[in-house]
Amino acid sequence: MLYSNIKNEKIKNIKKLNQKKYRDRDNLFIVEGEHLVLEAYKKGMIKELILEQNVIFPLDVPTIYVTNDVINYISELETPQPIMAICNKLEEKELIGNKILVLDGIQDPGNLGTIIRSAVAFNIDTIILSNDTVDLYNSKVIRASQGLLFHINIIKRNLLDIIPVLKENKYQIIGTKVTYGNSLKSIAKLQKFAIIMGNEGNGIKDEIQELCDQFIYIDMNEACESLNVGVATSIILYELDK
Amino acid sequence: MLYSNIKNEKIKNIKKLNQKKYRDRDNLFIVEGEHLVLEAYKKGMIKELILEQNVIFPLDVPTIYVTNDVINYISELETPQPIMAICNKLEEKELIGNKILVLDGIQDPGNLGTIIRSAVAFNIDTIILSNDTVDLYNSKVIRASQGLLFHINIIKRNLLDIIPVLKENKYQIIGTKVTYGNSLKSIAKLQKFAIIMGNEGNGIKDEIQELCDQFIYIDMNEACESLNVGVATSIILYELDK
Repeated sequence: MLYSNIKNEKIKNIKKLNQKKYRDRDNLFIVEGEHLVLEAYKKGMIKELILEQNVIFPLDVPTIYVTNDVINYISELETPQPIMAICNKLEEKELIGNKILVLDGIQDPGNLGTIIRSAVAFNIDTIILSNDTVDLYNSKVIRASQGLLFHINIIKRNLLDIIPVLKENKYQIIGTKVTYGNSLKSIAKLQKFAIIMGNEGNGIKDEIQELCDQFIYIDMNEACESLNVGVATSIILYELDK
Repeated sequence: MLYSNIKNEKIKNIKKLNQKKYRDRDNLFIVEGEHLVLEAYKKGMIKELILEQNVIFPLDVPTIYVTNDVINYISELETPQPIMAICNKLEEKELIGNKILVLDGIQDPGNLGTIIRSAVAFNIDTIILSNDTVDLYNSKVIRASQGLLFHINIIKRNLLDIIPVLKENKYQIIGTKVTYGNSLKSIAKLQKFAIIMGNEGNGIKDEIQELCDQFIYIDMNEACESLNVGVATSIILYELDK
């Protein structure tokens, strides 16, 4: 079936998935480009493959063909790709593993994607997103993560509920601040921890800070007031993974 | 003097500074927003301050006033700021110090800005940009660096000329690859080094690789093929600064 009209109801509904409210309503999201489509395919997440007419990309999933106009209409990229897919959202699992990363209100999708990529690199078992974290299925998050959000357990929780549960289960709760606490370099190896990273402008919320067992900071030259949160998270996860 | 017409020759010339060719021609660049303007002011780099009419921001530099229309016309930001400045480019100094970061063809302005911020944080003395690196005075570079490009010696060179000079002067030339060489964790403390980071897609050019004394990589889970270059650089500089 070839779709050529951007006013077609099905095409309009696909494009709506660029907005969070429709992703939430339909429990679906879009990925664009060969690499991300293949990553989603490997995980069995594709509901429908969307190919520009004449593109040969044989995957064993329901497939529709569209014109270049339709690709350009749906795409959020500066350079739209002739291969896209509509995917089912990941099933939320329970909290697993001993190495937990907690994100308290990260707002920039590029930062969240970068953090997910580094969390996979440095063997985090579960990422917990606060309810006010940017949407995991925002296309910029997916692109910045290079599809690695499909390779790690990510759950969304009220942090004021889940952190006490982590404490009961003997996770060390570690907050991060720019200049307060223990130097990252001096931290002994941790077996079971939840490390909390805060919002870009405001850091970790006060009521979450109160739940922390200790704080760590990254030593740096005082000319630099702070690091990008994606960079800071990556350095901390690298160090904790040693 | 109040400028209200976007067709005014002076205003048109200011806006042209958003393009590299005019920044190069005039040896000038623009910064937007209070924080960056203050950083540039502290370094004595401001040629002319641009304020939206009625804004009070008294700095001891030549100042012009413009209407909101003119601000919106000049600005590259989604939310234009009522405070901007035209700045003289930094004077290029010579290579200084023992800790050198070499960037071989970084293309993304956000990455370059992030790398500059981390280089200041982790006490790099000089950053050498290859001639094909993204323009240092691109507004996205300046914003991502949070103005820290004013706090570090940055020079632009042909890497095939400068690296042999570094070798003669006993700098260890360290290349970076995703999975080849020595693990970053195993590197002994270096006193005098030049660490080379490559382009986002292609890494370090072959002819530059041939000049390296050793290569290092960052240990990571194999599900992650590579890290963002800004993240990788930051982790390496953090480790070398210990």
